[in-house]
Amino acid sequence: MKSTLHLSLPDFLLKRADGFVATHPEARMREVISWSRENITAGEGPFAAGVFDLDTGACVGAGVNRVVASNCSPAHAEMMALMFAQQQLGTHDLSTRGRFVLTSSAQPCSQCFGALPWSGIRRLEFGADREEVESIGFDEGPFSPNWRDQLASRNIEVHGPLLGDEAAEVLRDYRHAGGPLY
Amino acid sequence: MKSTLHLSLPDFLLKRADGFVATHPEARMREVISWSRENITAGEGPFAAGVFDLDTGACVGAGVNRVVASNCSPAHAEMMALMFAQQQLGTHDLSTRGRFVLTSSAQPCSQCFGALPWSGIRRLEFGADREEVESIGFDEGPFSPNWRDQLASRNIEVHGPLLGDEAAEVLRDYRHAGGPLY
Repeated sequence: MKSTLHLSLPDFLLKRADGFVATHPEARMREVISWSRENITAGEGPFAAGVFDLDTGACVGAGVNRVVASNCSPAHAEMMALMFAQQQLGTHDLSTRGRFVLTSSAQPCSQCFGALPWSGIRRLEFGADREEVESIGFDEGPFSPNWRDQLASRNIEVHGPLLGDEAAEVLRDYRHAGGPLY
Repeated sequence: MKSTLHLSLPDFLLKRADGFVATHPEARMREVISWSRENITAGEGPFAAGVFDLDTGACVGAGVNRVVASNCSPAHAEMMALMFAQQQLGTHDLSTRGRFVLTSSAQPCSQCFGALPWSGIRRLEFGADREEVESIGFDEGPFSPNWRDQLASRNIEVHGPLLGDEAAEVLRDYRHAGGPLY
């Protein structure tokens, strides 16, 4: 039985995210959507996310979908971004280090939604909504219709869809290119 | 920005889980509950889980809560067990390798519940239920009252509470000892 699990980010993402700063939601989202497009070129799923400091705009963690590359079903873009941000800041609870937003190219699935309350983020920004994600054949999982209220009651603001058309275009391009669904 | 994230299992768990075989649900649960107790002694949260082959009973992945030790809010016992089983079997979808059960000392929280549909498991067995977990102060997250049906509709059978009293006793002992809640 293995004693250690390694999850890694692709080189392109490290180059793009390291030092990236954006204080405006649309600027963050535009960058994250471009990562999701580049992740298709890298041979992976069309999803990306970043964790940004709401005060400085600095990117403190980035993620793309690594499910197939890592043999790891939880390795969705949002989980990767949260885990790498927590590693970067040395805490399991980002709220102890400041005010952070998770900016995701798509509405989080049931797993990533369920992970938000313990991550310590204060805001979620998403691009393509659930309907767009499911329209190309991905499954978002079992959900509550009042998911926005559930996050609000835990002090997590939700903003989205944000640049929904641009985000959805990446998903459609992935589907048209015959990318695998999982 | 770091390029790789390492998640590791404690030595005691590797020793206990490696080679462990149990075809009976209660035998699996008794073992997993004992891991959850040992994880308290190791200084971590009172939760453990294992992934077992439903045909042979072999443990193919084990996990304990590593949230604080790993600076990683998603590192719940269930996620660790699923990720290590997937690493072990070289796939992001356990259903491609056989029929597997996730046996967890407690009812999964919203994150771990949401992760189940893509893990490829066919059965969930849990010990202490949501009410027991929350009675000692842990938060299980936003949930749907029909969560069992949601899993059933995705071909995941749910069995539990199983040895609920024994599992809950570990939680209460952790609380009485003043263990941190997160």
